[in-house]
Amino acid sequence: MNEITCWFDFASNYSYLSVMRLARQNQVNVRWKPFLLGPIFKELGWDNSPFVLQKNKGAYVWIDMQRQCAKYGLPWRQPSAFPRRSILAARVALLGEDQPWMADFCSRAMLANFAEDQDIGSESCIGTILDAMGQDAERILAAAQSPENKARLHMRSDEAKTLRLFGAPTFFVGMDMYWGNDRLDDALAQAAIG
Amino acid sequence: MNEITCWFDFASNYSYLSVMRLARQNQVNVRWKPFLLGPIFKELGWDNSPFVLQKNKGAYVWIDMQRQCAKYGLPWRQPSAFPRRSILAARVALLGEDQPWMADFCSRAMLANFAEDQDIGSESCIGTILDAMGQDAERILAAAQSPENKARLHMRSDEAKTLRLFGAPTFFVGMDMYWGNDRLDDALAQAAIG
Repeated sequence: MNEITCWFDFASNYSYLSVMRLARQNQVNVRWKPFLLGPIFKELGWDNSPFVLQKNKGAYVWIDMQRQCAKYGLPWRQPSAFPRRSILAARVALLGEDQPWMADFCSRAMLANFAEDQDIGSESCIGTILDAMGQDAERILAAAQSPENKARLHMRSDEAKTLRLFGAPTFFVGMDMYWGNDRLDDALAQAAIG
Repeated sequence: MNEITCWFDFASNYSYLSVMRLARQNQVNVRWKPFLLGPIFKELGWDNSPFVLQKNKGAYVWIDMQRQCAKYGLPWRQPSAFPRRSILAARVALLGEDQPWMADFCSRAMLANFAEDQDIGSESCIGTILDAMGQDAERILAAAQSPENKARLHMRSDEAKTLRLFGAPTFFVGMDMYWGNDRLDDALAQAAIG
């Protein structure tokens, strides 16, 4: 089956669009790569999201998100905190990468952040999501925060740097990189060719 | 007639795509707003294009440009110097804003930079373009570099800051801002509604 790799951060609003779109489709297989943008931004000398650091761009982004969500039929509520701490969601998603519940978990965590204005950085929020999915929240949250899994997330950051990622979402079809939700259609078309 | 305002910089590769696309269409009237990104970037603390300052993004941008030009059927040659000094082209375009030759001049200068790898910062390059258009190159170049016209370009930069521009191309349909060539279709659709 044709495949696309999706690198995303639960704190990234444009990742929200792509995760939801990929979770809904059945044309290509998705390899999920949750990661953290923080270490990438840090290497660029930024201590926060460019949408916070660049005020005019930041103001525009919320207008753009409203339009984009309308375009894709996705719910939208501007988060009252941005960017939210996404490390817990990323750690859980690392555990779920090859599980049948991965796309469902990613969608729910993204909706919590960008449609329901919930603090996805909290154990209670992520735990509630796992509960609602019928998963063993306590066991998964413990495993997510184990030293082994924390180390895996560090390795994921190293992999992102090696691949020269600079933002999210980023897609790979084979070796070809596509950056941003605006390129998801192109990446999917490339994946469909195989 | 329905109208779109296009803010663009001759040094900006994504402006190249939008200027060429707008110059080719007849559906909406275009108000051209040549300006310089330099002062905008300077306010953000940047002394160069983000595509130069952020090396990984910069490397990706040239791959993306190749794909985008193929998509829109536009010629492409990666400029051997980037970003090129666009101040002379911008000053000439300021004079041409309401002239029938404006779209033609903008297209030719963009092609010189992004398809023919010419130094659009030079008087000889811009003069040759004006000559080829049957314009009085000597007169226009002199007027472009008059104190009055230089002052107009400074005013244009102030206007860009007042409008909270942060990149190029940027479009306005009425008061609605759209940023980036990826939003030109949306802006045109909005302009068509009126």
